[in-house]
Amino acid sequence: MTAYTDLEQRFRRIGAVGGALAVLDWDRSAMMPDGGANARAEQIATLGVMRHELLVDAAMGDLLAAARPEGEWQTANLREMRRVWEHATALPADLVDARARATSACEMIWRKARADNDFKSFLPSFVEVLKITNDVAAAKANAFGLSPYDALVEEYEPGGRAARFDEIFADLAGFLPGFLKQALEQQARKPAPLPLPGPFPVAAQRELGLKFMAALGFDFHHGRLDVSLHPFTGGVPEDVRITTRYREDDFSGSLMGVLHETGHALYELGLPRDWAGQPVGEARGMVLHESQSLLVEMQACRGHEFIAYAAPLLRAAFGGTGPAWDEANIARLYTRVRPGLIRVDADEVCYPAHVILRYRLERALLRGDLAPADLPGAWTDGMKELLGVTVPTDRDGCLQDIHWPTGSFGYFPTYTLGALSAAQLFAAARAQSPDLLPGIARGDFRPLLAWLRSKVHRHGSVLATDDILQRATGAPLGTGPFKAHLKARYLA
Amino acid sequence: MTAYTDLEQRFRRIGAVGGALAVLDWDRSAMMPDGGANARAEQIATLGVMRHELLVDAAMGDLLAAARPEGEWQTANLREMRRVWEHATALPADLVDARARATSACEMIWRKARADNDFKSFLPSFVEVLKITNDVAAAKANAFGLSPYDALVEEYEPGGRAARFDEIFADLAGFLPGFLKQALEQQARKPAPLPLPGPFPVAAQRELGLKFMAALGFDFHHGRLDVSLHPFTGGVPEDVRITTRYREDDFSGSLMGVLHETGHALYELGLPRDWAGQPVGEARGMVLHESQSLLVEMQACRGHEFIAYAAPLLRAAFGGTGPAWDEANIARLYTRVRPGLIRVDADEVCYPAHVILRYRLERALLRGDLAPADLPGAWTDGMKELLGVTVPTDRDGCLQDIHWPTGSFGYFPTYTLGALSAAQLFAAARAQSPDLLPGIARGDFRPLLAWLRSKVHRHGSVLATDDILQRATGAPLGTGPFKAHLKARYLA
Repeated sequence: MTAYTDLEQRFRRIGAVGGALAVLDWDRSAMMPDGGANARAEQIATLGVMRHELLVDAAMGDLLAAARPEGEWQTANLREMRRVWEHATALPADLVDARARATSACEMIWRKARADNDFKSFLPSFVEVLKITNDVAAAKANAFGLSPYDALVEEYEPGGRAARFDEIFADLAGFLPGFLKQALEQQARKPAPLPLPGPFPVAAQRELGLKFMAALGFDFHHGRLDVSLHPFTGGVPEDVRITTRYREDDFSGSLMGVLHETGHALYELGLPRDWAGQPVGEARGMVLHESQSLLVEMQACRGHEFIAYAAPLLRAAFGGTGPAWDEANIARLYTRVRPGLIRVDADEVCYPAHVILRYRLERALLRGDLAPADLPGAWTDGMKELLGVTVPTDRDGCLQDIHWPTGSFGYFPTYTLGALSAAQLFAAARAQSPDLLPGIARGDFRPLLAWLRSKVHRHGSVLATDDILQRATGAPLGTGPFKAHLKARYLA
Repeated sequence: MTAYTDLEQRFRRIGAVGGALAVLDWDRSAMMPDGGANARAEQIATLGVMRHELLVDAAMGDLLAAARPEGEWQTANLREMRRVWEHATALPADLVDARARATSACEMIWRKARADNDFKSFLPSFVEVLKITNDVAAAKANAFGLSPYDALVEEYEPGGRAARFDEIFADLAGFLPGFLKQALEQQARKPAPLPLPGPFPVAAQRELGLKFMAALGFDFHHGRLDVSLHPFTGGVPEDVRITTRYREDDFSGSLMGVLHETGHALYELGLPRDWAGQPVGEARGMVLHESQSLLVEMQACRGHEFIAYAAPLLRAAFGGTGPAWDEANIARLYTRVRPGLIRVDADEVCYPAHVILRYRLERALLRGDLAPADLPGAWTDGMKELLGVTVPTDRDGCLQDIHWPTGSFGYFPTYTLGALSAAQLFAAARAQSPDLLPGIARGDFRPLLAWLRSKVHRHGSVLATDDILQRATGAPLGTGPFKAHLKARYLA
């Protein structure tokens, strides 16, 4: 056995434990009765520790140094093995432990503080999380030779760099407020969209979701659709589990959620099967992952072609008649621009403003330029500047997201970089595949899926995000296609 | 840390991995799409190996020797730890591997051979499984100081001994053929039961099953009911997952299956929570486990009191009217005696004959007194002798069960010992708890559950099966209560 094949065997085991963890995590959200929580926490913690022990095994450093991979994929696999190993070994055990304790405590306090709209009770544990996050960032920066913030970003988006985020977000921050004003004026000149009258039986919503999933190319031999409080995509590439939640008075939220998660799922399902269980066989990072969900939900499924295909199916599913169920009205509903307080409810025009605000604030908090106690004021000012919205309470302001309480700093930018990537990929796909939009209008997503499979999914982690985008679209990631998309959709 | 607390910590980890395996196994049968099979097999194999590695860790022998437990439960826990460790270390690695390969190959061949009714194609792989099973039995016999067959039984029923099985089965084999004749004569004097006219919508069957589960005391904060091809009880004691399967033309099979699995589940749910994850906190063995399922299904839920409570609910669930839905007819349906070919379809009068046949044959096969090639003939002769039934094909004869192809020798006796235990426990419960039967007639199972919790469930593995039975019923396991039960139900 060579050092490289030894590593492949070790990572196969690590991958299998990771897959088991993914199934246990899905079950916890989608199936588990509440009384199973303690036993499940014990199972997940135990497997997590065992997975970590496999990664930091004493032999691993020497094997990584001695391995002589053959060809592009093995070489990339070794690079990704080293990356995973460096993340596992970068932090001393006491810091890993301290972070787990601090974030677990802060998350619990945050849940109550958000419900009570009580920033003050949240502040001490948040200060502690910030302090430990800076320690983590310093340790990783030292290990990776990166700036502290970039070292945090690496966990979610390998190669993601703040210098680039700064440029992109400055560009968008200069463009969006003016564009938003124009889009709202344009919207005001059209009739207000009529609400779709319910109720909408859950069984019919589920059937419709399954039908759209099948049309998009979701393979039910390799996945499922279930229900959870917070929709997500879980499982393993051979068995992808997506979830949604249903409201009887509104089907659109659930349906768009299913389409969004289907985009994530198609990426997982399209990853290179030959490299399943190896690091190079995994999805490249959160930017491309979010690009795939937003490409399906925002680019493909809020466009006129999709609505032309979907409107008759919606009417049939819910017995809809009358002008509210016209294609034009449904299109207006699905592209309505409404500046608001909550990120997860934001439309695609307003969403980047939410992300830019969080990016600015998390950088200032970590650098010490913003005192944690001053966060509510800075949030309020930023929302006014970026979206023209007044924040009435911290609950709907700086306490709305789970990310910071759980220590996920450096994650927010990937949402908007994903949206930019989605626009850029979809524009390239349309240009390269002339049957793509006509296909969608007929409910035929094969041209779209074939393009994504060939240009994005099959690469796994063999290439960097930028290389995938460059090869697929002929250009590095930029803001142009996203702006062009917004103009075409909201100013036409 | 003392040697004992070190062991508790190790077994807590081993228990958590075992719990994860139980969830993955449940998901495979109840949720997983077929395309997830390979990834799941890899996850389960990996966790199985890691669990085994934890058990056979080099430090374990010294810790077990050095541990000084305090009190009854720690002492019993150490005894059970040693038992689990002895099972894990009794077999050399190459034998474990050979057994896994042989049984996996034989199971695959058996599935096809059964479908094709082709014993000849099954024979070579079965001969190999028998050979390896004898090697396993010899190695375990050597390690445990038991006879080879008793060493196999130990895996399913600690303390189970063939000498005792011989006595019990000889007693039953002497009693049952004559009793069966009497019961059939008695049955012939009554009106033939009318079939319940369907169809029975699956949703209504499920609702009814959930209602009975709740009445029996199943805690849905700690468990679920789902669907699988072969009904089973899985999960962990804090989160018990039972399954059933539905047929639109017959609800009784599914409903009785739910009641049976609920009996298993109540045992798991009633195990001592303080010892969850430790060996002493687990169910005692397959005899008591089967006693709990049969006590609920056969003793409690085919009796007149249960049917008095259930008949109106059945009528309401399925809109049943007319004489077929009378209590008396439903009682006749649920206690019908019909000698047949298939063990899993057998009624409680005929079931022991199926088990006795398998017990005799597996002992003869392992001792070499019966050549594997002669199994079909011996099966046919045995069925004629014990049940008066003619076996037309091997598919419905010696190829019907999965146990032998998968190497489960020594398991079959636990079914009938479980039935005897169920009768003995239920008789004692009725005698000690006068409100038990009147409660069941009102749908109030609290007296029954309280008795089972106190006399069986809460003991986990702190006592031996025999001790639990002796303390609960005042006598060791015997055939008397089972015979008395059969006479009361079938000759009255």
